[in-house]
Amino acid sequence: MLTAVEDEMRAVLQRQDASPDLFYGMMHYHMGWVDANLQPVQLNSGKRIRPLLCLLVCQAAGGDWRQAVPAAAAIEILHNFSLIHDDIEDASPTRRGRDTIWKLWGVEQAINSGDAMFAIAHLALTRLLDRGVDAAVIVEALRRFDETCVRLTQGQHADMDFEKREGVSVADYIEMITGKTAVLLSYAAAVGALVAGRDPQTIHHYTQYGLNLGLAFQVIDDILGIWGDESRTGKSAATDIITRKKTLPVLDGLSKSETLQQLYHNTTSSDTFVTEVITLLDEVGSYKLAAGKAAVYSASALQHLQAAQPAGAAAAALHQLTTMLLQRDF
Amino acid sequence: MLTAVEDEMRAVLQRQDASPDLFYGMMHYHMGWVDANLQPVQLNSGKRIRPLLCLLVCQAAGGDWRQAVPAAAAIEILHNFSLIHDDIEDASPTRRGRDTIWKLWGVEQAINSGDAMFAIAHLALTRLLDRGVDAAVIVEALRRFDETCVRLTQGQHADMDFEKREGVSVADYIEMITGKTAVLLSYAAAVGALVAGRDPQTIHHYTQYGLNLGLAFQVIDDILGIWGDESRTGKSAATDIITRKKTLPVLDGLSKSETLQQLYHNTTSSDTFVTEVITLLDEVGSYKLAAGKAAVYSASALQHLQAAQPAGAAAAALHQLTTMLLQRDF
Repeated sequence: MLTAVEDEMRAVLQRQDASPDLFYGMMHYHMGWVDANLQPVQLNSGKRIRPLLCLLVCQAAGGDWRQAVPAAAAIEILHNFSLIHDDIEDASPTRRGRDTIWKLWGVEQAINSGDAMFAIAHLALTRLLDRGVDAAVIVEALRRFDETCVRLTQGQHADMDFEKREGVSVADYIEMITGKTAVLLSYAAAVGALVAGRDPQTIHHYTQYGLNLGLAFQVIDDILGIWGDESRTGKSAATDIITRKKTLPVLDGLSKSETLQQLYHNTTSSDTFVTEVITLLDEVGSYKLAAGKAAVYSASALQHLQAAQPAGAAAAALHQLTTMLLQRDF
Repeated sequence: MLTAVEDEMRAVLQRQDASPDLFYGMMHYHMGWVDANLQPVQLNSGKRIRPLLCLLVCQAAGGDWRQAVPAAAAIEILHNFSLIHDDIEDASPTRRGRDTIWKLWGVEQAINSGDAMFAIAHLALTRLLDRGVDAAVIVEALRRFDETCVRLTQGQHADMDFEKREGVSVADYIEMITGKTAVLLSYAAAVGALVAGRDPQTIHHYTQYGLNLGLAFQVIDDILGIWGDESRTGKSAATDIITRKKTLPVLDGLSKSETLQQLYHNTTSSDTFVTEVITLLDEVGSYKLAAGKAAVYSASALQHLQAAQPAGAAAAALHQLTTMLLQRDF
C-alpha cells in the first residue's frame, strides 16, 4: 500500500514537462526524496500513518484500497505542507535530522513552497476521478478536506496563541489538539469509508474513530513526554519539562498548583527542576487526569471502530495499527 | 453582482458558531471589513475585477450569473490569500494604506491566516453544489482552480528568484507574469463558462481571453510605471525606475545596453538617473518592444472574446470591462 502512495505522490509532485527545478526540488527535499543539492537519496521520510489509515479503512469498509490511493497521497502531502509552515512558525531549524526548507532557502521561498504543496494536495484528491470514483463523492471528499484544513489552521492559531498567554484551560488544549492532530486522522478514516461508498452512519463511526484515536495518541504522547521510559520511547522525558511545553498534564498542574506556576515562571531551571515538577504533577493528580483522558479517548476510538464493523484482513491490520498507536507503555 | 459576491464571501469567511475571534478577525481585517480592533468599517477593499469577470462571462456565455457566485467568491478569497503571503515575502508593511497582517499580528500568525483563507477559498467553490451545479462540473472547476494555484506559486517563486539574479530574459519574465497575474484572470473567465455549461471550445476561448487580458494588463502596467502620465495614472512614473524594478521594458533594456546595466548596478541614484534611464530605454527600443507586446496580447484577448461569442447585456458589460483594462493611456 505504501509503495502505491509513494508512487502517487511522486506523480502529482512533479512538473508536467519533467524538467527538475528548485520549485519542485524544495518539495522533493522536504519529502525526503532528494538532498539539499537536489540529488536523489533514500531517507526516513516519516511513518505515513495517515495514508495507511485511509487505505486500510477503505478496504476494511468493503472498498478497494487502490481507489483511495489519491486520497491517501493528498492526506500525506497536506500533512507535509503543514510541517513546512509549522517549521517556519516555530522557527525550527531541523526536522528528521535535516535542515528545514526555510533554513536552506529562506522564509519567503519556504512559505511559497508550502503554498504550492497545499494546492498540489488538492490536485491529488481530484485524481480520484481517474480511479472511477463518482464525482459527487469527490466533491464531498474535497469539502471535508478543506473543512479539515480550516480546523488545522485553527489548531495552529490556538497553539501559537497559547504560548503567549497564561491560564490556558484543559478544554482549550483539547480543542487545540483536536485541530492540530485529531482532525487529519479523522479525515483519513472518513475519506476511506467515503470512497468505499459506505452509508453516512458508517462514515460517522470511522470519523469518530479517527478523531478519538488522534486525541488518545496526542494525550499519550504528552504523558510519555513527562513520565515516559527514555529507553523505550527513544526521547528524553525531561525535554517537555525543561522547554516548559504546555502539554495536558502541565496545564492541569498549573491550574491546580501555585508552586508549579512559580516554577514555570522562572526562566532558569535548577538541577532539581525536573524532579520537583514531576512530584508536583503527581501530587495534584495531573498524571491520573491525563491517563484517564487517554483511556476514555482510546475506549471511544475502539467502540466506534467496532460499530463501523470493519471486515477481512484489512480489519485485522486496522486493529493492529490502532493497538500500536494506543498501547504505548506509560 | 458585487453585492452578491460580498455576501457569499462573508458567509464562507465566518465561524459556524458566529462568535468572532482573532482567527477570523485577521481575515476580516484583510478583507477590509473590520479595523485592527476588529470593529466594523467601510473601506475600499480592492476593485474585485476577477469575480466580476467570472460572473459577466457566466451570464454572457448563456448561464445564470447567480450560479457562479460561489466561484467568484472563491477567486476573490484566493486572490486575497495570495496578497497576505506576498506581503510577508516582500516584507511590505502596508497595503491599501493600512498595516499588513504580518505587521500587526506577526509573521507566524500571518502565514497561518493565509493558509486558512486558502482552505476557505476551496470551501467557497464546493458551495457551487448548493446552487445546483453538477458535481462533475465542480470537480473540473476545483481541478482547474488548483492548477491555477500551482501556477500562481510558480510565478511567485520566479519573481523572488529574479530579484536575486542577473540576466533574466523577457521570455522568463512573461512566464513569471503569466503565473503571477494572467492565470487567475484566465481561470475567472474559464470557470464562468464552465458553470454556464459550455462546450470545451468555448471554454478554451474564454481561457485564452482571460490569459491574454492578464498579460496585456500587466505589460501596460509596466509601461505606465515608466512612461505613464502621473496626473492620469495617479502613481509616480519614476517609482518603478528608482526602485530598480525589473519590469518588461527594463529587462529588455538591460539585455541591450551596457550603460543601463552599469546605471542599475549603482545603489545610489543621481538627480538625472530617471531621465537617463528613460532616454536609454527609448534609444534601444524598449518602449516600442513593450508597446508591441501589449498590442499583441490585447488583440489576442479581443479575438478570443469574439470567438467565444458572448451574448446579451453581459457581453456589452464584458467588452466595457475589457476596454477599461486595456485602453489605459500610454
